[in-house]
Amino acid sequence: MRPPVITLLTDYGPQSEYVGALHAVLVAADPGIVRVDLAHDIPPGDVTFGAVVLERLVRQLPTAVHLAVVDPGVGTGRRGLAVRLAGGGALVGPDNGLLGLAAAALGAVAAVALPAHAGDAATFDGRDVFAPAAARLALGDALDRLGDEIDPYGIAAPSVADPEVGPGVVRAAILGCDRFGNVQLAADAAALDRAGIGAGVGVEVRGPAGRASGAVARTFGDVRPGAVVVYGDSHGRLAVAVNGGDAASRLGARAGGSVVISVTPAAAP
Amino acid sequence: MRPPVITLLTDYGPQSEYVGALHAVLVAADPGIVRVDLAHDIPPGDVTFGAVVLERLVRQLPTAVHLAVVDPGVGTGRRGLAVRLAGGGALVGPDNGLLGLAAAALGAVAAVALPAHAGDAATFDGRDVFAPAAARLALGDALDRLGDEIDPYGIAAPSVADPEVGPGVVRAAILGCDRFGNVQLAADAAALDRAGIGAGVGVEVRGPAGRASGAVARTFGDVRPGAVVVYGDSHGRLAVAVNGGDAASRLGARAGGSVVISVTPAAAP
Amino acid sequence: MRPPVITLLTDYGPQSEYVGALHAVLVAADPGIVRVDLAHDIPPGDVTFGAVVLERLVRQLPTAVHLAVVDPGVGTGRRGLAVRLAGGGALVGPDNGLLGLAAAALGAVAAVALPAHAGDAATFDGRDVFAPAAARLALGDALDRLGDEIDPYGIAAPSVADPEVGPGVVRAAILGCDRFGNVQLAADAAALDRAGIGAGVGVEVRGPAGRASGAVARTFGDVRPGAVVVYGDSHGRLAVAVNGGDAASRLGARAGGSVVISVTPAAAP
Repeated sequence: MRPPVITLLTDYGPQSEYVGALHAVLVAADPGIVRVDLAHDIPPGDVTFGAVVLERLVRQLPTAVHLAVVDPGVGTGRRGLAVRLAGGGALVGPDNGLLGLAAAALGAVAAVALPAHAGDAATFDGRDVFAPAAARLALGDALDRLGDEIDPYGIAAPSVADPEVGPGVVRAAILGCDRFGNVQLAADAAALDRAGIGAGVGVEVRGPAGRASGAVARTFGDVRPGAVVVYGDSHGRLAVAVNGGDAASRLGARAGGSVVISVTPAAAP
Repeated sequence: MRPPVITLLTDYGPQSEYVGALHAVLVAADPGIVRVDLAHDIPPGDVTFGAVVLERLVRQLPTAVHLAVVDPGVGTGRRGLAVRLAGGGALVGPDNGLLGLAAAALGAVAAVALPAHAGDAATFDGRDVFAPAAARLALGDALDRLGDEIDPYGIAAPSVADPEVGPGVVRAAILGCDRFGNVQLAADAAALDRAGIGAGVGVEVRGPAGRASGAVARTFGDVRPGAVVVYGDSHGRLAVAVNGGDAASRLGARAGGSVVISVTPAAAP
Repeated sequence: MRPPVITLLTDYGPQSEYVGALHAVLVAADPGIVRVDLAHDIPPGDVTFGAVVLERLVRQLPTAVHLAVVDPGVGTGRRGLAVRLAGGGALVGPDNGLLGLAAAALGAVAAVALPAHAGDAATFDGRDVFAPAAARLALGDALDRLGDEIDPYGIAAPSVADPEVGPGVVRAAILGCDRFGNVQLAADAAALDRAGIGAGVGVEVRGPAGRASGAVARTFGDVRPGAVVVYGDSHGRLAVAVNGGDAASRLGARAGGSVVISVTPAAAP
């Protein structure tokens, strides 16, 4: 028989005690639960980036309960949610936008508001509310036993700005930067097509605090070392890297800022 | 049948090769062992903080073997321990204070001193001594087959300073700071009651290199953005945070320093 | 029956979304696969250090499929490999040197070149090529069904410089530094013997940007606090530490640099 699977995504910090506390709840519920850490290095409190990463990863997974906690408003009025998905499985976490993209991608068919934690602690709903709910769902509890039903179409979603596209130019918000200094943008790779910027075209990229030139290409090694490459990343989104370097520091990129990609007059990658 | 569970807590750094080496020992012993990472981001060599975190987390868990290694004195005279717990399960690690709080919390009923590693290496007892002992216990070996019995009441415990409490003032040692900049103090939340500082009362907090004002409350969002909140954390201990900010950097907090919380003359959160 | 075991080693960053994506592929293939994280904090793009760490850790493990990805050349011409090992099990990853030391240590008996990913994405072969191949091998697929056979003796290996040894002096390349500031050198501990530097001998250590004095010893506590200790580490390699301090920052050590260890005229540890 297929074992229950619970995935975990948080901004708690890799292998911190808070991540350990979630695992402890799940193991205490049943050591046979298959636990899958999706990401715990989401920047602290960055609900939007958490939502984007969660959506990507849940698409890859089979039926599972997805426990996600990026929760700067813990202990305040925001609701806790458990959401049944169209293909089976569930999402569990705060109703602050974190679950919105994944719920839309996988199809929310029912939802309940989780009751607030009854104890003294008001700052660790991941351990006290969400992980226990995830464990109950994974072990077969019915969704409607966990809380009062609410409208599954009313789940909060993050507002991610659309890119601005003109002839030969794309402006897009920065979603986040990874360990390699690659910059993820809030734009589909198709935005380049709409701007008429094709593969191999030389571009200049301006960030919040720096600029660099390079080309549109498929991968890092397609441009010379130190040059910028604008590419469709592994999720079909637009991204900016520097071959053998760190695009985030070169451009001064940070979540919340934006990047402008424009065709250079003399295009040479 | 319930599978054997081994938890791991170290200062080796998240998903570093040293953590991987412990997992390798356990998997080589039996891939069916359920491995639970409790925390690997304990500050290097901080035995006291490791002991505090270990105690918290083992309380949450079912019967298990808890492997813990924060071991600045590796290779010197300090003993290695395996400790049988009252409710079943065991603790394994160095006898330098790391296991003391967990042993007291869960009840040590027997203990043995583990023999030193026979090989050349003198710097990785986690891999060479403690993980193998944990695996043997998890797989059913008797405690007294692992070493010579010692007094289970003689296990070293860290000395954590008690808070100093006066009318309207609490001084407490800093145990550690988390990724969010929240500062954990060596004081129960009840210390505030003893000082006559109730919920909602405005306070000033002085740290090793900075001060901030705010209030006593249940959670971050109970004070205005940027204000300090003094609260009982999810373990019933006193903690200091800044709503939407980083209390640790604001106060210059670091393990070993202390914080003074005092009622402000005009108390308004 | 023994479950299939897959180990993971990358430079993706601890519990980052990229590590999560690899786990997602493996869990989607079969949630019963035992997944073992060996290390995910390899410095970005450091193929040599990744190769060294991989070799060490696979020696510890039973028969398993080892998935390793440190891949600065992703999307370019470098081959992807799956390698059958003499004792069973396999290595999967890029043919850029990362697998070379492990393949030599465990014995490569057959190898195939994995076909390039057919989709649009050219920057995440870990998810798109290597993890799926590792899952297929772990679940029993024959190696030759994964790609075209190639010469198992032609697997790329990193070039690690040998130490230079003279009377009373050893110069060795720096492989990497760990969280504790310990510096790992590209030299066996036996290099000290060849230089005539025995245990207890006082030495001076010069790094790329700093020097310190101490002694050759078995462990940190064998020298006074703040002194350098040169020792054979837990893998039999030469390493440099500072008792209670950070040798890497004291010496300005970084991968690619080198360290010179020489006997001090007046040797006193």
